[in-house]
Amino acid sequence: MTDALVIFTPSGRRGRVARGTPVLAAARQLGVDLDSVCGGRGICSKCQITPQIGEFAKHGVTVRADALSPWNAVEARYDEKRGLAPGRRLGCQACIEGDVVIDVPPESQVHRQVVRKAVSSRPMEMDPATRLYLCEVAEPDMHEPTGDFERLAAALESEWQISGLRCDPAVLRELQPALRKGNWQITVAVHQATGAAPLLVAIWPGFHEGDLYGLAIDLGSTTIAAHLTSLGDGRVVASAGAMNPQIRFGEDLMSRVSYAMMNPGGAAEMTAAVREAIDGLAADLATEAGVEPATVVEAVVVCNPVMHHLFLGIDPVELGQAPFALATSSAIAAPARDFGLSAIAPAARLYMLPCIAGHVGADAAAVALSEAPERSDDLVLVVDVGTNAEILLGNRDRVLACSSPTGPAFEGAQISSGQRAAPGAIERVEIDRATREPRFRIIGCEFWSDDPAFPAEAAITGICGSGIIEAVAEMRMAGLVDASGLIGGPEQTGTPRCIPDGRTHAYVLHDASASGGPRILVTQGDIRAIQLAKSALYAGARLLMDELGVDHVDRIVLAGAFGAHISPKHAMVLGMIPDAPLDRVTSAGNAAGTGARIALCSRAARASIEATVQRIHKIETAIEPRFQEHFVAANALPHASDPFALLRAGVPLPEPSFNRAAAEGGGRRRRRSPA
Amino acid sequence: MTDALVIFTPSGRRGRVARGTPVLAAARQLGVDLDSVCGGRGICSKCQITPQIGEFAKHGVTVRADALSPWNAVEARYDEKRGLAPGRRLGCQACIEGDVVIDVPPESQVHRQVVRKAVSSRPMEMDPATRLYLCEVAEPDMHEPTGDFERLAAALESEWQISGLRCDPAVLRELQPALRKGNWQITVAVHQATGAAPLLVAIWPGFHEGDLYGLAIDLGSTTIAAHLTSLGDGRVVASAGAMNPQIRFGEDLMSRVSYAMMNPGGAAEMTAAVREAIDGLAADLATEAGVEPATVVEAVVVCNPVMHHLFLGIDPVELGQAPFALATSSAIAAPARDFGLSAIAPAARLYMLPCIAGHVGADAAAVALSEAPERSDDLVLVVDVGTNAEILLGNRDRVLACSSPTGPAFEGAQISSGQRAAPGAIERVEIDRATREPRFRIIGCEFWSDDPAFPAEAAITGICGSGIIEAVAEMRMAGLVDASGLIGGPEQTGTPRCIPDGRTHAYVLHDASASGGPRILVTQGDIRAIQLAKSALYAGARLLMDELGVDHVDRIVLAGAFGAHISPKHAMVLGMIPDAPLDRVTSAGNAAGTGARIALCSRAARASIEATVQRIHKIETAIEPRFQEHFVAANALPHASDPFALLRAGVPLPEPSFNRAAAEGGGRRRRRSPA
Repeated sequence: MTDALVIFTPSGRRGRVARGTPVLAAARQLGVDLDSVCGGRGICSKCQITPQIGEFAKHGVTVRADALSPWNAVEARYDEKRGLAPGRRLGCQACIEGDVVIDVPPESQVHRQVVRKAVSSRPMEMDPATRLYLCEVAEPDMHEPTGDFERLAAALESEWQISGLRCDPAVLRELQPALRKGNWQITVAVHQATGAAPLLVAIWPGFHEGDLYGLAIDLGSTTIAAHLTSLGDGRVVASAGAMNPQIRFGEDLMSRVSYAMMNPGGAAEMTAAVREAIDGLAADLATEAGVEPATVVEAVVVCNPVMHHLFLGIDPVELGQAPFALATSSAIAAPARDFGLSAIAPAARLYMLPCIAGHVGADAAAVALSEAPERSDDLVLVVDVGTNAEILLGNRDRVLACSSPTGPAFEGAQISSGQRAAPGAIERVEIDRATREPRFRIIGCEFWSDDPAFPAEAAITGICGSGIIEAVAEMRMAGLVDASGLIGGPEQTGTPRCIPDGRTHAYVLHDASASGGPRILVTQGDIRAIQLAKSALYAGARLLMDELGVDHVDRIVLAGAFGAHISPKHAMVLGMIPDAPLDRVTSAGNAAGTGARIALCSRAARASIEATVQRIHKIETAIEPRFQEHFVAANALPHASDPFALLRAGVPLPEPSFNRAAAEGGGRRRRRSPA
Repeated sequence: MTDALVIFTPSGRRGRVARGTPVLAAARQLGVDLDSVCGGRGICSKCQITPQIGEFAKHGVTVRADALSPWNAVEARYDEKRGLAPGRRLGCQACIEGDVVIDVPPESQVHRQVVRKAVSSRPMEMDPATRLYLCEVAEPDMHEPTGDFERLAAALESEWQISGLRCDPAVLRELQPALRKGNWQITVAVHQATGAAPLLVAIWPGFHEGDLYGLAIDLGSTTIAAHLTSLGDGRVVASAGAMNPQIRFGEDLMSRVSYAMMNPGGAAEMTAAVREAIDGLAADLATEAGVEPATVVEAVVVCNPVMHHLFLGIDPVELGQAPFALATSSAIAAPARDFGLSAIAPAARLYMLPCIAGHVGADAAAVALSEAPERSDDLVLVVDVGTNAEILLGNRDRVLACSSPTGPAFEGAQISSGQRAAPGAIERVEIDRATREPRFRIIGCEFWSDDPAFPAEAAITGICGSGIIEAVAEMRMAGLVDASGLIGGPEQTGTPRCIPDGRTHAYVLHDASASGGPRILVTQGDIRAIQLAKSALYAGARLLMDELGVDHVDRIVLAGAFGAHISPKHAMVLGMIPDAPLDRVTSAGNAAGTGARIALCSRAARASIEATVQRIHKIETAIEPRFQEHFVAANALPHASDPFALLRAGVPLPEPSFNRAAAEGGGRRRRRSPA
């Protein structure tokens, strides 16, 4: 009998192969997902497997110790140079000599599942569009002249069954020296997007050791976050953030649209600014992670529609007025260099998720990809908090989406001592109900400010989004602020920390001015800004609930760059979010960024979200009269529709009411128009 | 009976259609090639037809005067505004009411045949990759939000059955204002290359009147010629030429390859120089022709392999040494802007014909496309004369190709009074056999220099390629030059026009130095340069003849930028070309440029040449010992293998032999290595 039975785990695929067949070849015959970059030349070690020796009753097979060919010279050399874990064999070297059970460890699977950190998340399957292949290219023959590229394409077809290869001109330029330097062996990065011809996007002479990388970019109105991500196993190797330089053209989206309308060339200025910032982040990340820029072959950008258009170089003017028409809503796939990304591989590819609607962008699509409300059994409200809030509500039956113009207050902007989340920013606040004295924590320090271990020299620089939310909620719970949002004076609140501030009052959270340090206040203006922001957020959520005909949701997911840092209790005291059991309010961290990473690592995810956005029902807040009603109704602190919800959650509220006439006046501001 | 019989001419397609069917709709039903840009809205007038009234025995039909619906308001308005030729109707307005014969005039056919000027040429069928379509795009709906582009793509699919539209980012940027300006009517230029998704490359608000254009660029080592060509009917609307600015890096290809090898960044310098020159020509042509640059949506470039690589930004170093490997040999299709073309539509497409071999480039492919030796019944030798000569030999059975390093002498370079073909250059020469006095013609003047009408103030600037060939041949026929190429002295030739010139002699073709004008000599060095060039050309042709085992060809086609100007008799006296009956030596003009124009106007031609080059057998002259033998043997004037051929052609030659020792010396130069 010349055939042997081979069973692969964990896939369970089995079949008979001729004795002497290398394990890698057997895996390919049987359709088993076993990785290889070098195509079985014993170079890349990606095809490591572990033979299982012994009796396997459930498989009905007994595996003898000599079921695989003996350890060979290639494996010995590899083990000596790089080390092979005990029990591991190289699948391209070990040949099947008898019935055998072979385990493919996760790191040897191309499509391995990657467990995501957030508890609620599904695992993600690696399925990147760009992968490495080692090829042996035929040398040129004067009598049968063909181009080096054409011979490479022929090699890729015969060795890897990838046909119809095309080449980016930037790579073509490098091809001849690389082939000669590698002595006609070359490692190629081939981009295979669904429905497009395979494209050569990077090359290295000989065998290229190491991973390919991609950039997941979450382009917010206020901040830009970028994550350099391995396309091998999806891990983030470096992250960096920066302010969106467009802020100098306008703090919120509508001011930027206005800037574009009022200034010829204004849109182009903003396009150049944001592209330059992203390219800078890309350069920093590669340096920080020690990653060769040429290995960064993909980028995924998620952002709201105005950022989307400005990044693409499209004037966003139409997004500033009904009917808020997008220039394009489909996913974008293009060379990254066309959008100013020069600090990565010259032929790197860019992917942008589809937009859902004129006000619900690729960032909302990314949140949907990450949180998958369309697969949820219970009714989930996903809120991505930022300068614009993206709101999704739904379950398996139906998913609705809208965006709500919260403004930048939640990101620390438009707040008197506000700043973005960075070391030195106050991020947590507690106010003693009796003494009305505050304590706080700053980013970068594990101690509370009243802890003796809190460093005296701590550089307190301001207050960030989560800090201002907690401060306002704590002030409310400590009776320093009434339900209308007014801060009481010292005589009303009984604490000298409530000081006159123009025609209103402010609460002194921290005062080191005597020693030349900062004085951090929460002013009446700050409270008004937070009230506007939270009312907009709440009104958006309520609008979706109205549309679905529900008055409560089963669970709430807080997402967004700082969603991870918001305390659910404080959010509910503020009335940012609808009532829900406190233990069903979870944080998904930066879900838009996670969605970008998922799209970076998986073609299937790209296809999936492109299909999903077609099925999401969009609600336009800007033209819904009910949005205005909800917005106005949501101004109070709190505005819980069920006043007992907070009590049940253990949050008793005092009910002071401060003299309106005395306190109000300077802080009044006009309602921001939704955008 | 509700159906009517309709017969279209010249296609002969016939069928029955419901009465009341517009002629355009009937044409579409029956697969008749009837043009329309506006899709039947009575705007574009491209669908003009002529109904034939009367008895048509051969069709078996009698057409009544009322076979078509009466002239309608749309036609009346069109006629008033633009004029309709007598008998013409608009195919989208005229409806079929009875049996009818309808003639589709050539200008109403999309795929109309265009007759090419050269006598030998096949007609060319228009089949451009980029065409115009008028679309009505649905307005945006806030409640069903989709992008403007997605609605445009849907309109193109429903109105024109073009699905899967993609968009260049440069066009996406213009889309929203264009749609609104045109009140949701838009004219789009869609590029549909074989095997690629349709691509939106230009747009205009509303209906765009006028043609699309393409640039056919013949990029030679010494000169660049560009022809702005209508994609509607293939006519050239403007042509321009310029010196190739790479000349300052090296006159011939090998010196440019050396420059790239010796100077870091040298290849990039040459790339930038040639791209800038081409872009300048593009700008000039659009201005000259009064063509809106945005309507120039395609460019085709043909050139030799070194120019090909330098234009693409690829270091040509591998082309300077065996095995002369091309980086890529396939046709190139890419955005033109990636190659520095900024003076045309931002999303214009570039196409480069495939290369045949390391020394036989896209220019040779273009000559093959134009002259089609693979369809010839008799054995044809096609010689494209330039700094490098591309030579094709074959018939229906087999086609061979090689290139031969003739050097720039044929283009007027390396000639003492040489210049490129431009007004003022001597292009024709005759030397009286008896008096040995010359007469000549210059470009831009119809009179011979001995004609009383020849203007005294004529600005004679130098001598161009065809002029020097005639001069040398005439000098040979007048007995001023012996078979070895030596110029005789005044005492040997009996004319004071043969003057001492260093250690050799020169012939005074023109001398206005007494009046401060130019003195045009033909020097011994000039004769040697021509001898080298013609020997290389002849040796290449002989090599192909050897390979095919023939010692004569049925006919010869002279091509090349100045191929049109070479007199076959003089070429044969020089021994540039193998013997052939003088009346079978024809000129094809700039066949490479014509090939570029054909590729510009026809997708089918692109597919055809891509297939043809695969079947052409390539001969590498640089490594063929027989090439050297032929080269040496071909040095004499003439070297006709059949010495009676010239006699039969009516060209008797004197047989002087000038004193070698006296005449030779300074003019010796080393043989150029083939490249």
